[in-house]
Amino acid sequence: MTTAGVIDREHSAARIERDIEHLATAAFTRSSEAIRRYAYTPEYRRTLDYFKGELERIGFTVSEDPVGTLVARNRPAAEPAFGIGSHCDSNRNGGKYDGTMGVVTALEVCRLNAEHGLGLPLQLISFLEEEGSGFGQMLLGSRIVAQRVTDEDLRERFRAIDDGRSFWEHAECAGYEPARWRECGSVLDGLTGWIEMHIEQARVLQDTGNRIGIVNAIAGYVHADVVVLGRGDHAGATPMDLRLDPALVLAETAIELERLARDAGQGTVGTIGEIDIEPGLINAIASRVRFSLDIRGPVDAAYRGIAREIGAFAVRSAEARDMRAEYTERQALAATPMDKRIVGALEQAAVAAGEPYRQMHSGAAHDTMCVADRIPTAMVFVPCKDGISHHPAENADSADAALAAEIILTAIASLQ
Amino acid sequence: MTTAGVIDREHSAARIERDIEHLATAAFTRSSEAIRRYAYTPEYRRTLDYFKGELERIGFTVSEDPVGTLVARNRPAAEPAFGIGSHCDSNRNGGKYDGTMGVVTALEVCRLNAEHGLGLPLQLISFLEEEGSGFGQMLLGSRIVAQRVTDEDLRERFRAIDDGRSFWEHAECAGYEPARWRECGSVLDGLTGWIEMHIEQARVLQDTGNRIGIVNAIAGYVHADVVVLGRGDHAGATPMDLRLDPALVLAETAIELERLARDAGQGTVGTIGEIDIEPGLINAIASRVRFSLDIRGPVDAAYRGIAREIGAFAVRSAEARDMRAEYTERQALAATPMDKRIVGALEQAAVAAGEPYRQMHSGAAHDTMCVADRIPTAMVFVPCKDGISHHPAENADSADAALAAEIILTAIASLQ
Repeated sequence: MTTAGVIDREHSAARIERDIEHLATAAFTRSSEAIRRYAYTPEYRRTLDYFKGELERIGFTVSEDPVGTLVARNRPAAEPAFGIGSHCDSNRNGGKYDGTMGVVTALEVCRLNAEHGLGLPLQLISFLEEEGSGFGQMLLGSRIVAQRVTDEDLRERFRAIDDGRSFWEHAECAGYEPARWRECGSVLDGLTGWIEMHIEQARVLQDTGNRIGIVNAIAGYVHADVVVLGRGDHAGATPMDLRLDPALVLAETAIELERLARDAGQGTVGTIGEIDIEPGLINAIASRVRFSLDIRGPVDAAYRGIAREIGAFAVRSAEARDMRAEYTERQALAATPMDKRIVGALEQAAVAAGEPYRQMHSGAAHDTMCVADRIPTAMVFVPCKDGISHHPAENADSADAALAAEIILTAIASLQ
Repeated sequence: MTTAGVIDREHSAARIERDIEHLATAAFTRSSEAIRRYAYTPEYRRTLDYFKGELERIGFTVSEDPVGTLVARNRPAAEPAFGIGSHCDSNRNGGKYDGTMGVVTALEVCRLNAEHGLGLPLQLISFLEEEGSGFGQMLLGSRIVAQRVTDEDLRERFRAIDDGRSFWEHAECAGYEPARWRECGSVLDGLTGWIEMHIEQARVLQDTGNRIGIVNAIAGYVHADVVVLGRGDHAGATPMDLRLDPALVLAETAIELERLARDAGQGTVGTIGEIDIEPGLINAIASRVRFSLDIRGPVDAAYRGIAREIGAFAVRSAEARDMRAEYTERQALAATPMDKRIVGALEQAAVAAGEPYRQMHSGAAHDTMCVADRIPTAMVFVPCKDGISHHPAENADSADAALAAEIILTAIASLQ
């Protein structure tokens, strides 16, 4: 089957635009200045209800799992189907597109399947709490589905940013049954594959002139901190050769991190995004500097090697200056390769669509990382303007999303 | 005249110790955990009254100028006399020694002069608000004496940290006549020279095994800021060659500043003590970094050259990375050379005292910078433990202060 020339992309784009704009109106956000939407709030409830209504209209059966994951099928439960979807929560100062455009595009795939009578078996999923706006836990919904949480996490540890009450309590108040959270894994039962569409959240597609990114891997990462202990002396009264200035260890480490990441290639990146300097006065040599390390890449060996090397470098840089540095890993997550067969099908579909695309990896984390534990997966990216996301200024083109819907539909059809 | 062998240093040290400890009791500080003393408070009033009582006991006439500068003389007003003193306010989380030990040591010089019948004409000054704890203005008292302020500064601009009321209002409430502030300049009338004793506030004396520092210059400085504008992208999703990371301009500039300061020598120092990084998230490349520059030295040409070079370097470093950096000077103050004749007299006195001393410059600012506008000046430093100052842990040895008192007395005698 080919959809080339059959699908009216402008019509798709208009429907996607309408959905996006509708879900950006006051009923669907808790902020007048941004999209702010998270689980177990009236705004989130209305968003799920909107998708439910649209999906039921085209013959899907819609349900929610014990914590509120939205599941819609055009086949009976557990029969084989191909999974598509994303998340429709936002970060607290968010835009209209991150997550939501992925669910809207999945909905468009379902619409196209129905109106062109393709008869593809489909299951749409909208995960909750990808952004962590409700409980400070990223990918929370898909981690519950993947059973990457514990009972204690949900009962006690994960607490609402707004009021400190537990996830468990909030879920129960919203009418769910968190005690049955282990059953959420069945959301993935019967899926023969999974494709998530998402805005890119970076500038690679824009800067390379591509309309579609076919994701072949999601980067793994190491998050770590380096603390350097110096000696807080008077900036004027302390000669250069009597000072222990930890800001210089920060400086040397930042430059070395850039060098290591560039040398490693293979999509490896390294960033220092947080810097605390104490006491932080113009006329005081710092007594202590803490800085964060975010080191990622699609190739585990490459970025993990850099994390080890930069930690050791910071310690050596401090010692060479008679100071002490300590490297502490906060969190690490392995890279997630995408399924070659699905990636290949997407690539063929992109070629058929005749628009510029590229294979790329995702530097950001996505729900698909959790789905990939059990199901062959891939992702499709569309450009977002200037790479801006997690911000009200976030912008993406419905025409690109329509193109993505067409490509995803074609790929799924070819995989049957 | 020589005082060697005549002066009982242990007796001096005990008196200095008693004064210091008395002025560290509850009546003289607004904090139970630190010395916190500033102008126009009951604690500051009691401190002035203590010095007044001690000075009157040895025959000095004590007065205060229109804003509260304490002036004590053993000669009629405007007759020639040699000036000694410091300040007795503290910073808000201060120790017992910064400033106060200088006034106490000056008092000890007066006592020794009296009890040994030396008959030296002396004037003690205790300046107010050297630390800026009351109104956020460093060297405020000595700047008023030096007429380095304006009517508007005192009436409007300089406002109390505690309640936002003006300096003027606070001074009037305390019974002074700020409208007559221009007369404060007469505090220096008739002075033939000036010596201020102060704790070093750094580790040079401790680390070089000296008990006395004879200051031959007070460093000038440039305070400046560099703002680097980058592009706040996703740390995971943005490849190394598509990012504009301002933290790397900070890093390059910090390393270059250290190199320039070391190369310049002549006591030049450069410090980055403040760093603001925005948004300051582990997974975000910074959109903007601001950092401070504190560049000082006793040789104006040397440190000013570095300030110019490092500003230009930061701009070039940013441009080489397709970013923009802006260098803005906050404040600059020229170095203050000390009077060679007084420095020479202090050196001879130190040799006569037979204890290890060194000539050095002061990296920190002192009231003496303002006195030097009109009067030949010098300073004497004593070690403070581990260079710690502006902190309750500040510590200095009364025996060193007693040695300083002897050396100052001998030097003044030799200058008559």
